[in-house]
Amino acid sequence: MSTTRTEQPGEAVAPDLQAIHEAHERIRGQIHRTPIFTSETLDQIAGASLFFKCENLQKTGSFKFRGATNAVFALSDEEARRGVLTVSSGNHAGAISLAARRRGIPAWIVMPRNAPRAKRQAVESYGGRVTECEYDMASRDAVCKEVQEKTGAVLIHPYNDAHVIAGQGTAAIELLEDVPDLDIVVAPVSGGGLLSGTAIAAKSLSPSIRVVGAEPKNADDAYRSLGSGKIEPAAKSHTIADGLRAVLCPLTFSILRKYADEIALVSEEEIVSTMRLLWERLKLIVEPSGAVSAAIILQRKITTRGKRIGIILSGGNLDLDQIPFANSGK
Amino acid sequence: MSTTRTEQPGEAVAPDLQAIHEAHERIRGQIHRTPIFTSETLDQIAGASLFFKCENLQKTGSFKFRGATNAVFALSDEEARRGVLTVSSGNHAGAISLAARRRGIPAWIVMPRNAPRAKRQAVESYGGRVTECEYDMASRDAVCKEVQEKTGAVLIHPYNDAHVIAGQGTAAIELLEDVPDLDIVVAPVSGGGLLSGTAIAAKSLSPSIRVVGAEPKNADDAYRSLGSGKIEPAAKSHTIADGLRAVLCPLTFSILRKYADEIALVSEEEIVSTMRLLWERLKLIVEPSGAVSAAIILQRKITTRGKRIGIILSGGNLDLDQIPFANSGK
Repeated sequence: MSTTRTEQPGEAVAPDLQAIHEAHERIRGQIHRTPIFTSETLDQIAGASLFFKCENLQKTGSFKFRGATNAVFALSDEEARRGVLTVSSGNHAGAISLAARRRGIPAWIVMPRNAPRAKRQAVESYGGRVTECEYDMASRDAVCKEVQEKTGAVLIHPYNDAHVIAGQGTAAIELLEDVPDLDIVVAPVSGGGLLSGTAIAAKSLSPSIRVVGAEPKNADDAYRSLGSGKIEPAAKSHTIADGLRAVLCPLTFSILRKYADEIALVSEEEIVSTMRLLWERLKLIVEPSGAVSAAIILQRKITTRGKRIGIILSGGNLDLDQIPFANSGK
Repeated sequence: MSTTRTEQPGEAVAPDLQAIHEAHERIRGQIHRTPIFTSETLDQIAGASLFFKCENLQKTGSFKFRGATNAVFALSDEEARRGVLTVSSGNHAGAISLAARRRGIPAWIVMPRNAPRAKRQAVESYGGRVTECEYDMASRDAVCKEVQEKTGAVLIHPYNDAHVIAGQGTAAIELLEDVPDLDIVVAPVSGGGLLSGTAIAAKSLSPSIRVVGAEPKNADDAYRSLGSGKIEPAAKSHTIADGLRAVLCPLTFSILRKYADEIALVSEEEIVSTMRLLWERLKLIVEPSGAVSAAIILQRKITTRGKRIGIILSGGNLDLDQIPFANSGK
């Protein structure tokens, strides 16, 4: 996406706490203030007090609607008139589509052919206009450029955008308003937009809070990047957490180096069994990517005993035909 | 169960609104005040405004915890000391087990061998002591009598009990506190405890409200009973809604004749597709029995256009290995 970076309406600079508060004011009337769920059984498993911020219950089924709404509604009228454009395999695409419809402007979505069916259907149901591309970056960039030249639409990057990051940070603002005395907050990391917004908000409001990113072992680029000090390429392995395949950009990398304490990893089996546990105990549909943050805690990847832990369940969109534990006979 | 009726602590008389309010006071500190979910998409499908009372998010995963808690906590200390006993294939059993544990007394549960695995595991996790019986009524009554003679425990019937019915009615009290101007309220009907409590509460608070019972076509005894004017035997067909196989007792039959406006029926296919729709759109795990009330509305079994409709989603417990639409390739 670097070829189109100069077209971004949100600057590629880190938002501060003030920008996140402004984002919250801007989007408050458009989003759900999502509830926080608790479970005695899950607390027993973790040996800790867990507070699940249910972004799977956000409009469009994921936190992405926060950042998308902030970016779309921050556009000037002149910018907005041209419509918006994005490249996404899933939740950001649905979020941009609905945010654009709410503003009364068109949304063009460039989406890989192999995107989950449920996510594509969601985009179309929100009025997004899908153009397919191949999975490789060259095809995405080419198709994106083509659509942009034809339409003049404003590109809204899924995470390399200050307005998007500020919008994602509003979930942590709400979480800390509802549960002020958290010791740890956990969010999944892919391109890093949610974790960046979460980390800026949490560390600014409560410097002693520990900010942990959650990543599949099979998509461990953020873990490796923060270890090596430079942005590492994507892992080649497959992960069921289809929302967590993106890699950090320079903006999110620099934010996470400054504000995130740790990235922890979980296996595919741990993601699936955690997802099942959340379904059984919280009675909530959480997608694999959304279960990764809970897996870090419930599978004891970090020290949790006695702590008060906020966990962002990032999304709830998945093909219900493809439930990994159904009919397994387990 | 008629053989053991004289042992019941709750009289087999209809509770009134006052009794339901007293139940609410008694159990308020023990239960969740469950949230009400809404969905623009489901409103569009129904052509109505839908308010889902999420009893799948109740403690133990079903509304049954309301009635069980009321019955267990209404016992005198002397009665309570003997422990409690019930016969149930599922949610009532889990509910009694946890309510008894909260009061610090033992719970003996007589349960058919073929009860869903998830429900049996739940009973055991709440400290209930399971004794298996066969599915037929003779075996149930014999095993129940045997356990009762051995332990002296107080039988708490799943629905032929004024305290249980009053407890179930507290869900409708909360629903109407949160959404006072409902035109219709829908609850599933099996033995009739939930629908009886709902109907007494709703008609007492708002006489113009329409109270609709929801039943599977394959377990249509309440529909037939209210049509013929006498309690009809259970249907012989199988239904996926495993919580809705019981038949009315004289108490619930007389309450429903007086207060319920209608029983509407749905097919097995309609139950499954509605359950899927609820999972996709509300991001909530709802069990088949819990989806039956929503199916009446979303499959347009009654006239709904423009109405404000409260729908009780009664439970969220099911074996996640046995999801009826998973891997179907649909």
